[in-house]
Amino acid sequence: MQEKRISDNVIRRLPRYLRKLEELQKRGVEKVSSFELGRALGLTASQIRQDLNCFGEFGLQGYGYNVQMLRERIAIILGMGRGYRAILIGVGNIGRSLIDKFSFENWGYFLDCTFDVDPDIIGQVINGIQVHDINVLPAYLSTNRVDVAVLCVSKDAAVDTARLLEKNGVKAIWNFTNVDVAGPESDLLVENVHFSDSLLALSYYLTQNARNKDLNR
Amino acid sequence: MQEKRISDNVIRRLPRYLRKLEELQKRGVEKVSSFELGRALGLTASQIRQDLNCFGEFGLQGYGYNVQMLRERIAIILGMGRGYRAILIGVGNIGRSLIDKFSFENWGYFLDCTFDVDPDIIGQVINGIQVHDINVLPAYLSTNRVDVAVLCVSKDAAVDTARLLEKNGVKAIWNFTNVDVAGPESDLLVENVHFSDSLLALSYYLTQNARNKDLNR
Repeated sequence: MQEKRISDNVIRRLPRYLRKLEELQKRGVEKVSSFELGRALGLTASQIRQDLNCFGEFGLQGYGYNVQMLRERIAIILGMGRGYRAILIGVGNIGRSLIDKFSFENWGYFLDCTFDVDPDIIGQVINGIQVHDINVLPAYLSTNRVDVAVLCVSKDAAVDTARLLEKNGVKAIWNFTNVDVAGPESDLLVENVHFSDSLLALSYYLTQNARNKDLNR
Repeated sequence: MQEKRISDNVIRRLPRYLRKLEELQKRGVEKVSSFELGRALGLTASQIRQDLNCFGEFGLQGYGYNVQMLRERIAIILGMGRGYRAILIGVGNIGRSLIDKFSFENWGYFLDCTFDVDPDIIGQVINGIQVHDINVLPAYLSTNRVDVAVLCVSKDAAVDTARLLEKNGVKAIWNFTNVDVAGPESDLLVENVHFSDSLLALSYYLTQNARNKDLNR
C-alpha cells in the first residue's frame, strides 16, 4: 500500500480511533459508520473518512467500517506489531509508575530493563524488571537492541542523559522530563509527554461551562 | 467576543501553540508569522490562521502575530486566569510525581490538598501539600470549592471514587486511572490522560523511519 505523507494531526488521532474501536469490539460491535465513530470521538463523519483515506480504502459505501479489520489495520499503521524494545532511565515516581502500571506489551513494546543512579534502587527488581546502574548503560547499548528510551530522570540530568543515549546509538526517546532534550543538531526522534496539554483542555471546557452558566443566568 | 462552537481538535492544539509562544517569548521573539508558527508545530500556515480565527482576529495582514499578545489571549481562552482549585486523590507513584513535579500554578491551578486511604501516608505533607484521610473527603467538599479532582487511585477504586466525587458536587475529573469513570448518566467532565497515545505516535514515526530505510536499501 502506498502511503502519502500524513499530517501529524491525523497520526495523533489514530490512537484515539484505536481505543474507541477496542471498546466497540469488547462490546461485540462488528461494524461502525463514520458517522457513529465521529460522534463517539467528537469529530465529523467527513473528518473520519478523510483521516482513514490517508491510509487507503477501509470502509465500504453504505456498510461502514468492519471494527476488527479497522482496528487491526490501525495497529499495523502505528507499528504495534514490530516488537519495539524499550529501556527506562530514572526510577523515580513517574518511572516507577510506568514500570508498575503501564502495559508496554499492550502497545507492542517490550520493556527490557531500567537504569538509575541511586545505589539504593540499583539491583532492585520492580514488576519483574531489573534496575541497573546507569554506568553500565553504554555497555548495555553496545550489545542490546534498544528502539526507545523512556526518559524519566530529573530535569537537571535530562539533557546529559539524552546525549549519552544518542551517542550510544539510541534513536528515539519518550520524554517525561519536560525538558527539550533534542538539540538543533540532533537526529533523535523525541516524543514529549506534556501532562499540561490535557489539563488545559479540561480548563477550556470548565471555562466554557462557567461562561454558559453566566449567560443562562 | 462572540465565540463559535470550536472543534475539540482546535482546542487540543491550543496548549501546543501556548508552549511554542512561551518558547519564542523566552528567546526574545516579538512577532511570528503563521508560516513560521506552522513550521515550528508541523502545521500549515492556513491551518494556524483557521485555528486562531475561531477566537476572533489576532493577526495583522503582512505583520503576523504579536507573540506576547497571542500568548496572553490563548491563556485566557484556556481559562488559565480563573484560579481553578484542585485536589488529588491517590498518593501512589503517579500521584506523588504530580505533587512533586507538576507545576499546577503554571497552568492556573491551585492544588489545595490530597487524599489517600493508606494510614502510612495520611498526615504526610508532600511538597507543602497535606495528605488527608479519604474518609474526610465528603466533609471537605461540603465546605471547600473544588473545580477539578485529579484521580490517581488504583483501577479497582476508580469508578467508586469518581462516583463519590460526583455525589459530593465535583464537576470535573483529570483522570490518570485508565478506567472510563464517566457513566452514561454522568454529567462529569472527564479528561482522560492516556500515556499510550503519545507512545503510539512515537511508534508510528519509528516505523516510518524503518520503512524509509528499507526503501533506500
